[in-house]
Amino acid sequence: MNSFGRNFRITSFGESHGPGIGVIIDGCPPDLELETGDIQPFLDRRRPGTSPLTSQRKEKDSVEILSGTFEGRTTGAPIALLVRNQDQRSGDYEEIREKFRPGHADFTWQKKYGIRDHRGGGRSSGRETIGRVAAGAVAIKYLSGKGIDVTGKVLAVHGKTDPDELQQEILSARDAGDSVGGIVEISARGCPPGLGDPVFGKLDARIAGALMGIGAVKGVEIGDGFASAARFGSENNDPMTKSGFASNHAGGVLGGISTGQDIVVRIAVKPTPSISIPQQTRDIHGNEVEISVRGRHDPCIVPRIVPVAEAMLALVLADCMLEQAKYTAG
Amino acid sequence: MNSFGRNFRITSFGESHGPGIGVIIDGCPPDLELETGDIQPFLDRRRPGTSPLTSQRKEKDSVEILSGTFEGRTTGAPIALLVRNQDQRSGDYEEIREKFRPGHADFTWQKKYGIRDHRGGGRSSGRETIGRVAAGAVAIKYLSGKGIDVTGKVLAVHGKTDPDELQQEILSARDAGDSVGGIVEISARGCPPGLGDPVFGKLDARIAGALMGIGAVKGVEIGDGFASAARFGSENNDPMTKSGFASNHAGGVLGGISTGQDIVVRIAVKPTPSISIPQQTRDIHGNEVEISVRGRHDPCIVPRIVPVAEAMLALVLADCMLEQAKYTAG
Amino acid sequence: MNSFGRNFRITSFGESHGPGIGVIIDGCPPDLELETGDIQPFLDRRRPGTSPLTSQRKEKDSVEILSGTFEGRTTGAPIALLVRNQDQRSGDYEEIREKFRPGHADFTWQKKYGIRDHRGGGRSSGRETIGRVAAGAVAIKYLSGKGIDVTGKVLAVHGKTDPDELQQEILSARDAGDSVGGIVEISARGCPPGLGDPVFGKLDARIAGALMGIGAVKGVEIGDGFASAARFGSENNDPMTKSGFASNHAGGVLGGISTGQDIVVRIAVKPTPSISIPQQTRDIHGNEVEISVRGRHDPCIVPRIVPVAEAMLALVLADCMLEQAKYTAG
Amino acid sequence: MNSFGRNFRITSFGESHGPGIGVIIDGCPPDLELETGDIQPFLDRRRPGTSPLTSQRKEKDSVEILSGTFEGRTTGAPIALLVRNQDQRSGDYEEIREKFRPGHADFTWQKKYGIRDHRGGGRSSGRETIGRVAAGAVAIKYLSGKGIDVTGKVLAVHGKTDPDELQQEILSARDAGDSVGGIVEISARGCPPGLGDPVFGKLDARIAGALMGIGAVKGVEIGDGFASAARFGSENNDPMTKSGFASNHAGGVLGGISTGQDIVVRIAVKPTPSISIPQQTRDIHGNEVEISVRGRHDPCIVPRIVPVAEAMLALVLADCMLEQAKYTAG
Repeated sequence: MNSFGRNFRITSFGESHGPGIGVIIDGCPPDLELETGDIQPFLDRRRPGTSPLTSQRKEKDSVEILSGTFEGRTTGAPIALLVRNQDQRSGDYEEIREKFRPGHADFTWQKKYGIRDHRGGGRSSGRETIGRVAAGAVAIKYLSGKGIDVTGKVLAVHGKTDPDELQQEILSARDAGDSVGGIVEISARGCPPGLGDPVFGKLDARIAGALMGIGAVKGVEIGDGFASAARFGSENNDPMTKSGFASNHAGGVLGGISTGQDIVVRIAVKPTPSISIPQQTRDIHGNEVEISVRGRHDPCIVPRIVPVAEAMLALVLADCMLEQAKYTAG
Repeated sequence: MNSFGRNFRITSFGESHGPGIGVIIDGCPPDLELETGDIQPFLDRRRPGTSPLTSQRKEKDSVEILSGTFEGRTTGAPIALLVRNQDQRSGDYEEIREKFRPGHADFTWQKKYGIRDHRGGGRSSGRETIGRVAAGAVAIKYLSGKGIDVTGKVLAVHGKTDPDELQQEILSARDAGDSVGGIVEISARGCPPGLGDPVFGKLDARIAGALMGIGAVKGVEIGDGFASAARFGSENNDPMTKSGFASNHAGGVLGGISTGQDIVVRIAVKPTPSISIPQQTRDIHGNEVEISVRGRHDPCIVPRIVPVAEAMLALVLADCMLEQAKYTAG
Repeated sequence: MNSFGRNFRITSFGESHGPGIGVIIDGCPPDLELETGDIQPFLDRRRPGTSPLTSQRKEKDSVEILSGTFEGRTTGAPIALLVRNQDQRSGDYEEIREKFRPGHADFTWQKKYGIRDHRGGGRSSGRETIGRVAAGAVAIKYLSGKGIDVTGKVLAVHGKTDPDELQQEILSARDAGDSVGGIVEISARGCPPGLGDPVFGKLDARIAGALMGIGAVKGVEIGDGFASAARFGSENNDPMTKSGFASNHAGGVLGGISTGQDIVVRIAVKPTPSISIPQQTRDIHGNEVEISVRGRHDPCIVPRIVPVAEAMLALVLADCMLEQAKYTAG
Repeated sequence: MNSFGRNFRITSFGESHGPGIGVIIDGCPPDLELETGDIQPFLDRRRPGTSPLTSQRKEKDSVEILSGTFEGRTTGAPIALLVRNQDQRSGDYEEIREKFRPGHADFTWQKKYGIRDHRGGGRSSGRETIGRVAAGAVAIKYLSGKGIDVTGKVLAVHGKTDPDELQQEILSARDAGDSVGGIVEISARGCPPGLGDPVFGKLDARIAGALMGIGAVKGVEIGDGFASAARFGSENNDPMTKSGFASNHAGGVLGGISTGQDIVVRIAVKPTPSISIPQQTRDIHGNEVEISVRGRHDPCIVPRIVPVAEAMLALVLADCMLEQAKYTAG
């Protein structure tokens, strides 16, 4: 389904080469100041064409608020946001009308729906994340008023953690017609304790679902994550003192509920599947064919995933904040 | 919330030291053969007291079917399953009425609800997973009729992968009053392509949410997971041939939809937080105190998580199968 | 589906002649005093066998709280309530194993599920409402603490409104092996303005869905309802004064949101379809047959629907109260 | 909330005097032929300014498909539909910025949200139904391919059932600065038996909720509805013969599930609350004031509700069809 969240609920639509991409936010509290200037900077951060490290597709990605605000404030009505597509070179994609690109959704979507908008990946394109980022910007604005900050950063690319080195990895991959993956860390500071809903709406479960649902993400860990699997309990538990927890191995979540410490999450991002190096694949008729994916692709999607991952974490937290309000006020 | 799934939907209830633990399954297709014999073996696998490696709490965990079947077959009505608690030594827990156990949900649940059933962790106890396993057994039965098998295994404990060595790690930890974590792998064979619902109900997103929601799980990865973050695209993509995919780095999911290959997932399980080694913590009045968690605890929860993780994967797949039926028949 | 509500969410299970009937309440606020004594009186009001006007089935309908409370207070965990069936004379129903009773769900459930628990109507039995009433009792308790009272009454039976006359109608119908319908009015006093969620979760829409979902209900109207269709706007609008509304034609709801006035709803209840007068029908093999429905049936279900309708209205209001809390606190 | 349906799920947005009104359909089956020509005629039927009986606001209400189709067919991706507002005379509404119009949502929305877009009623305007009608047109197209037809008609206005007389009632009311209500009947032909989901998703419950949620609707009845409350069971039951049911007092629904007969529903529509006759009311400061609602209003909304009610019934049926597909294929 194309909706996410229970209370701060978003519904997303749009394809890479259709008229546009958009999102509806249902449940944003009323009387929040909101204008396009609160959203546009986040879209600009995920926008392509801004550096040699990213796709050269030129899109302004200008957002329009279609509903839900009055005189610069939210009203409690659904907020619809629309970004029109502009630089569509659908011709670039004629080859993939019939060929399944390895590592892409082409084959699986064809199997699921029996029909597929192949142009730029259609609905499975990374441009779908515009809706996430636009809605996330509103969530971030709401959270900011509650003293909660969400930030993300690239931790590693192709195994390199030094900024200069990882940039070099990306450029080398691009020149070789190849691509590279990496690790992103997202964290939230200022969360009150008590967020998250046992047993199937736990905060960590929601975060994991939210982040694993971003295209190219293949792993999620909270706090010390996989490292904690090789620990003793006596090493891994976070002792408590009068002033709070003495450490944060847990990443800010215990029993599925926030502790009040920083929430810390890392995601594994696979290398972009679109590479110009020739690959073996199949066409829709079942024939084996070779494919060299041309067009304007990112050699490394990791930096552009940062605002998307921030948006998803913010959406989860906004949702949990409103859920928890029921206990406070109910 | 205590419900999970959209179509094969379960709702769970019960506490460690209350009258019992149960689950309602809503949406199980009618005319499926079902009796307690289909469920009990799965509960027996997660049951405590069966080996020196596990908690010595003695529970038969006998399941009763309260509704939803008629003459040994499901009717389409909700299936309610109930397991009565038996061996409750609530006295063991008197100390933790006022002290927050490090690594446990005690502090966060108190903060969330302002009230807490401290006996054995109450609702945050591992006994909550009885509902998951019982419902999962029904999902496994349904999937089995569709040719889908779900299996899990322990991959590592405290960094050791050899069966003898990892057993020794558990016993050593137990003797030291400590605990150890580990890695579990769950996979599903026989899934048709097409399962999963973009963009927020992707198969991998649902799996991640389902597994991260199990107590003690701190990380989830699909296919090559975190390893893929250090790869080139040319290494990581799975080429296609006439007979299918030539490799399965993706773990059976592309673009959030199943490929038809094996679905492969790994989870990181933290060491059991209940250890008898003294730890520093706080009581509900804000005082710093020492705690040594006694009672009947598992020095390593990893083996007992296997049937729980299988259940959660099966529940996700059953849910997706029914969702996909709408496209087939709709 | 067998769940109802978003915030104060109930999930119901059980059949007329299975082991029992039950309900899980998920989302009840923590720290509410709750014991069986808060629930049992409501079950006693809907219980059969208490007067010559009702079915002679003897059921104690004793409720057990399986989870969700600790030391007499709710904890925020799901509250499971179970009523065991006792007086099951399944033999009474052998005839309807193969015959569809006119006016009953037999034919449609067979068509839907392809399988049917015919004993006493199985899941389609009026005993299903035990779950509604038990959960409604908890909602009523919660609402009572917020100053909201829900009450219901019989307005008419078979067109008669005088208490003595309507009782006589029921007895006459019983003696003739026939049955009669009637009208029930339910109202809520003390609701704050602001309850209900446009545009698809309007208060009146939820109430209508909740009440029309009770078996035998064929019509729902709010405020002046159908009478307002024959009015001028100048007659039907409720003017406002300093001290509030001058009239309540609207029944306490404007634009789908509560006004703060009494919420007033009426429902039309059809005559019980189980009558001993012979009727023409079909069996499951397609043959035309005659049926005379014996067993222990109510000649008029109207009085016993009152506590069910109160329960459903209370469940809607509790749900809306928690939803609205998000705006107050969010 | 602003979403409706589980499987054929719509999410609506937009205000009377904002940039536009729209809707997203999530869950429409793939490979359905769809273009604006399938939707526009339904919008034209509900459009104002087409006769002396309706509001004189001039709107083309041209629909744009923003997503979800490719080469004239649906793809399974969400279908976003947008209608831009054009003829906005916000100045007409300056008076109601501070005054609550009797019979309108002004007071309750102000109480709920603490903020209100007063221009033309904002989100509570009848223009909101554009989203319902646009989405309903897609549902009608889908149902049509399954052999199901949905139709509606005006049964009565101000108590008159003769077409000439009821038209005269409307014109008289208009000339008097007043308004009148009426009754609409909607029916569906060709539904298979088996639609609807006990016990809280019954077909009649969903229909009642769907129709009561349309602005101005104050009552809903299925089949013989309120009339059945004054009947004997022997009169009200529909006997069965070899060839089907001998009558349709039930209105096509038994036990919450469709029988395969025509589904017949009637709704009571209150007189439009906007009248130019002076009325007593209150302003947002609590003062008693007089109001005469000017602007371009319908003296009778009954005829324009017909396509809206058809749309809502079609949306319910499409949703139930997809739900039922799970049983057929699952």
